[in-house]
Amino acid sequence: IEKNMPEYIQHMLTSLSAADIAHLLESSPPRQRSLIWKLVPIEDEGDVLNELGEEVRQFFTDQMNVAELISILEDQDIDDTVDILQNLPQKITRQVLDSMSQQNRHRVEEVLAYPENTAGGLMNTDTLTVRGDITVDVALRYIRLHESLPEPFDQLLIVDRKDHLSGTVSIRRLLTSPTSSLLSELMEETVHSIPVTMEDSQIAQIFEREDLISAPVIDEQGHLLGRITVDDVVDVIREEAEHSVMSMAGLAEDEDTFAPAWKTSRRRAVWLGVNLCTAFISASVIGLFQETIDRVVALAVLMPIVASMGGVAGSQTLTLIIRAIALGQIGKSNISWLLSREFLVGLFNGLLWATVVALAAMYWFDDTVIAVVIALALVINLIVAVLAGAMLPIALKALKIDPALAGSVALTTITDVVGFLSFLGLATLFYG
Amino acid sequence: IEKNMPEYIQHMLTSLSAADIAHLLESSPPRQRSLIWKLVPIEDEGDVLNELGEEVRQFFTDQMNVAELISILEDQDIDDTVDILQNLPQKITRQVLDSMSQQNRHRVEEVLAYPENTAGGLMNTDTLTVRGDITVDVALRYIRLHESLPEPFDQLLIVDRKDHLSGTVSIRRLLTSPTSSLLSELMEETVHSIPVTMEDSQIAQIFEREDLISAPVIDEQGHLLGRITVDDVVDVIREEAEHSVMSMAGLAEDEDTFAPAWKTSRRRAVWLGVNLCTAFISASVIGLFQETIDRVVALAVLMPIVASMGGVAGSQTLTLIIRAIALGQIGKSNISWLLSREFLVGLFNGLLWATVVALAAMYWFDDTVIAVVIALALVINLIVAVLAGAMLPIALKALKIDPALAGSVALTTITDVVGFLSFLGLATLFYG
Repeated sequence: IEKNMPEYIQHMLTSLSAADIAHLLESSPPRQRSLIWKLVPIEDEGDVLNELGEEVRQFFTDQMNVAELISILEDQDIDDTVDILQNLPQKITRQVLDSMSQQNRHRVEEVLAYPENTAGGLMNTDTLTVRGDITVDVALRYIRLHESLPEPFDQLLIVDRKDHLSGTVSIRRLLTSPTSSLLSELMEETVHSIPVTMEDSQIAQIFEREDLISAPVIDEQGHLLGRITVDDVVDVIREEAEHSVMSMAGLAEDEDTFAPAWKTSRRRAVWLGVNLCTAFISASVIGLFQETIDRVVALAVLMPIVASMGGVAGSQTLTLIIRAIALGQIGKSNISWLLSREFLVGLFNGLLWATVVALAAMYWFDDTVIAVVIALALVINLIVAVLAGAMLPIALKALKIDPALAGSVALTTITDVVGFLSFLGLATLFYG
Repeated sequence: IEKNMPEYIQHMLTSLSAADIAHLLESSPPRQRSLIWKLVPIEDEGDVLNELGEEVRQFFTDQMNVAELISILEDQDIDDTVDILQNLPQKITRQVLDSMSQQNRHRVEEVLAYPENTAGGLMNTDTLTVRGDITVDVALRYIRLHESLPEPFDQLLIVDRKDHLSGTVSIRRLLTSPTSSLLSELMEETVHSIPVTMEDSQIAQIFEREDLISAPVIDEQGHLLGRITVDDVVDVIREEAEHSVMSMAGLAEDEDTFAPAWKTSRRRAVWLGVNLCTAFISASVIGLFQETIDRVVALAVLMPIVASMGGVAGSQTLTLIIRAIALGQIGKSNISWLLSREFLVGLFNGLLWATVVALAAMYWFDDTVIAVVIALALVINLIVAVLAGAMLPIALKALKIDPALAGSVALTTITDVVGFLSFLGLATLFYG
């Protein structure tokens, strides 16, 4: 983007969709970003804001005053408004809420009351409901009275007098059934209705498995509260996926790619600090064996091999098990099978690569003892690694610690410590 | 699952959806898996097969003869049939195709002709098309003639006499417009139509950005070929996400969690072998400095710290840049900004943690030289690490190598080599 072409940019922005403008903003370094934002037509600001990632969005909302926020949020859907309010300071949220019409405020507050990552926080309250005792023809005429329909419009929600959800009629069914049929005859009762407290990852699994476009949200008594649509579920899936990749490197899933240097440094420093602690633990294990290394310096040359092979073998298992947990595949009935499988995998690969490494060490240092020691250490470390890789995520999950975040740090610590300990320990024994 | 309760299982299976049965199969070790599969009602086998991950599905299709496959595929949608055929041996695919009605064979072959990961391979050919010169009323009556409609049914595709796509009318629009309006008046021309050669990751981005439910697929001349629906896009997003997590550990994205030990071992052995090569490279760097280590054994204790901090810092940048590339955020105009940002981040965190490590080394070994050496090495390695982390995925991408697969191996090799080289090299200089 050329810096002195604001007119050209302004012209370009009017031809882009809100999603495209958001993408452009997210792909721009801070200075250009502020420049482009100033050129976004005021009437589009709300839509663009909604399409932005949380961190970039907050960058802009932090700079707005209450009046600006109010005017931007005026035309937004309830769930989008809630998304934005959730990340504002309490005080400002209060002021924005006070400015709303009573009906809208009530609706927003209702959704705000649920945690962001549950059905309640994810749902939209603009549903179109009908009674089951009307005919297809009446339903179609009622629908035609609306100026616009909730999007996507894939099913009619049928409720009784007390707003209990009794079932759904898909629009496909509605459009192919005789116009004189009663909705109650066409209704499917076994709807995939989502309890308001269900967590978003579980909701995503249901949508994926059943290929849903939308699903009604109900409270404990079966009252209809709103509905969740597939476009929000797609966002959940993307966020979950990014979470597991990003948190392995100690990053947040909505990390701004173009955050300024000082902000980025500060955040990453924390993760480097955590890893420094674990590195010192490994170093202190090596420290125990300084005498042995002093006698056989080849040990210092080969010891990273044992540690790194353990790390790789362990992280393969760790990754597999974390995914299996996310997919809901792990239960009491299959853990023991998995552990024995992993043990065999560790043993087999341990023996295979121990042989290769032993031969290489033999050739390199012409020392039978070091070949035997590294082979044994490698088998031990690979077996420990795969077992740790399998048990760590299950244990962390039970402790309510995110395995994607803590798993690989914990695993590397274990494989480094066991790697150095077994290799240098055995060496001390054999050379002693 | 108890082994001697086949009747109970059979009863349970009839109450589960195909997706749930597939999930149960995927969550079972091999022996139980075969047992459960035998109990799946024959009429459900096709649906269950479709819901299975590629690897588990192939486990079952490999055991089937052509007659079984033909009977299972009979009731399946075109795109699902194609999915299954794509993974069968050429000869069997041919036999299955020969058994189909001419119309169906033609349709399947048409989709089979496109690569699996393009719009052509992803699309469904069962579209409902109408001309633009009819009224809403006529369209609704035409729709009502169908026994069932394509799912999801979110828009009508408007084509001209030559099957060129001219636009779409959303069902929401259709249901709220006057019945006498012409479809051509309601039609949106700026449809998100997908060229048949577009790659699936790009399609996923369009669906995500524009919150689409379905989109028409066209050839170069603008002829309508089929359409892509959001449920398939959800699968693409999930697969992409799993690919980036799994391939970092050298695993396939559709890896069967419960694959037998020998199969798992064999596959993982390859990745361990690759990593062993890189480990030997690092070891040979250490090998260059045996004399120095022999004189100052504390170097052997501290050297893994320098290497591991570089690895962590580099992988933070690598992860961020791989995601940014996937999101289409990286272009010529912002690479230089990113590189200078990363340089600053590396410098800042290098200085910070170099100070901490230097003080710790000082305290531990009471040796000023080693403190200075490790501090310098750490700053060098952290800067090299973040720059390598930023440039590697861009370079690998340009070489058409998957950054998620090769990135972290290549990065660790660099950070290990530079870490050992700078630390032990500087030590040799200072102690020499």
